[in-house]
Amino acid sequence: MKISIIGVGLIGGSMALKLRQKNIASFIYGIDHNKQHISDALDLKIIDVEANLEQGIKDSDLIILAIPVDATRKLLPSVLDLISDHQTVMDAGSTKAGIVGAVKDHPKRSRFVAFHPMWGTENNGPKSAIADSFAGKAGVICNKEESADDALETVEKVVNALDMHMIYMNAEDHDIHTAYISHISHITSYALANTVLEKEREEETIFQLASSGFSSTVRLAKSHPEMWVPIFKQNKENVLDVLNEHISQLRKFKSALEKENYEYLEELITNANRIRGILR
Amino acid sequence: MKISIIGVGLIGGSMALKLRQKNIASFIYGIDHNKQHISDALDLKIIDVEANLEQGIKDSDLIILAIPVDATRKLLPSVLDLISDHQTVMDAGSTKAGIVGAVKDHPKRSRFVAFHPMWGTENNGPKSAIADSFAGKAGVICNKEESADDALETVEKVVNALDMHMIYMNAEDHDIHTAYISHISHITSYALANTVLEKEREEETIFQLASSGFSSTVRLAKSHPEMWVPIFKQNKENVLDVLNEHISQLRKFKSALEKENYEYLEELITNANRIRGILR
Repeated sequence: MKISIIGVGLIGGSMALKLRQKNIASFIYGIDHNKQHISDALDLKIIDVEANLEQGIKDSDLIILAIPVDATRKLLPSVLDLISDHQTVMDAGSTKAGIVGAVKDHPKRSRFVAFHPMWGTENNGPKSAIADSFAGKAGVICNKEESADDALETVEKVVNALDMHMIYMNAEDHDIHTAYISHISHITSYALANTVLEKEREEETIFQLASSGFSSTVRLAKSHPEMWVPIFKQNKENVLDVLNEHISQLRKFKSALEKENYEYLEELITNANRIRGILR
Repeated sequence: MKISIIGVGLIGGSMALKLRQKNIASFIYGIDHNKQHISDALDLKIIDVEANLEQGIKDSDLIILAIPVDATRKLLPSVLDLISDHQTVMDAGSTKAGIVGAVKDHPKRSRFVAFHPMWGTENNGPKSAIADSFAGKAGVICNKEESADDALETVEKVVNALDMHMIYMNAEDHDIHTAYISHISHITSYALANTVLEKEREEETIFQLASSGFSSTVRLAKSHPEMWVPIFKQNKENVLDVLNEHISQLRKFKSALEKENYEYLEELITNANRIRGILR
């Protein structure tokens, strides 16, 4: 089928590569304000041609929005305005309630499928795109009952082609779970980077001493604000809830150390070790 | 040379593998209370024979302590009691001030070289040992002026054989820097695991939704308390200092969200992004 990718960055680019590899995409329009991204995406054969929104949408069976969640929320109604009943629209945003809320009463709501692939890196742009990146990860489809059967089938075909395991969830639950499992990780990583940058004034020392453990916990702190501020904004209540819990968990470690209560410290660590049984 | 490894776990085992590969070790004695580790280390040809402390030390040119830092602090004086002036002792502990303090006035102090390889994983035991694990990482030698020249040369030869880049530092500075760069990462990761386990009661959901980002920030939470409680204990003041800073950095994110001050949130993230220029 013919596909329009709105936002040919890390996610849009990776999807394009895989969908072409799997012969799902026969032709790909690239739509992006960022001319460098368009040019890179053309060089890397991620897209076939650049298009503007109207041109691309007009000739596409599937339109994929892979832009920051605030931009998706804003643009999605206009995209739905432009399509016919034979076309399908999907997004790839990390928050879902705001996005499905924005088109709740749109006459073309049923042509839209709300999607979130549980994969990303700290990098952006089509040069960071990797065809096999989604394999084995969760592909979450939200509020599927609000989508038309054939639109849902199209998106399920895409998710299968990305080699993801499909999960269905309502948008509110999705946003609660991702606050715990994804969004808080980014905040702790940003705050950890800021802590180290604040305390360790000699950047050379950070560079020289950085162990694999530090690099792994601080990796997400390289993620860009253009993507993450809108996510935190749209998922504010859930993120605050889990952030409060996280601060209180850190205070337990602080208290155990201050009181030299090493049995309690061991208990806290042993409890954390339970994650070993869940994430292999 | 002949080497005794006291503690044939992840670190001791990895050192043994590499030192044998590089023909630095001609014979390796393994000393460990854990009989399973001894048996695994024999199977994996990490050690040549099991020995008790007296046997191993008697016949070794180099004795490597690769056990938790509290055990090192306790055992090191007895090891020094047993050696002659031709033998060298090194450790591999993640804290240094307490360990060098414990042998400060020992008559054989100069035969000891305080060492910390900036590498580790969340796993333990000889089965997790990897010969090439240390390559490119920092190998920190502390208070080198307290070691005899020939003892220092022996350890430098070992550090070079591990393909590490050597850094010299005094023990107090080492403990400050590692609190920032390594120890706090473990606390944030433990606290993150506890947060998620507290909030997300459905373990199946964590497993299904876990993204690469979450897995990477929470990886260190699998690390064992036997190793980490003693590290936090010995580096209590520095760890508390950086933990306080970390909690106050998290509060800034909390405040930005609560006040819906998204310019400030962006500023915090942009500042954290500076880590990109330091850690590639």
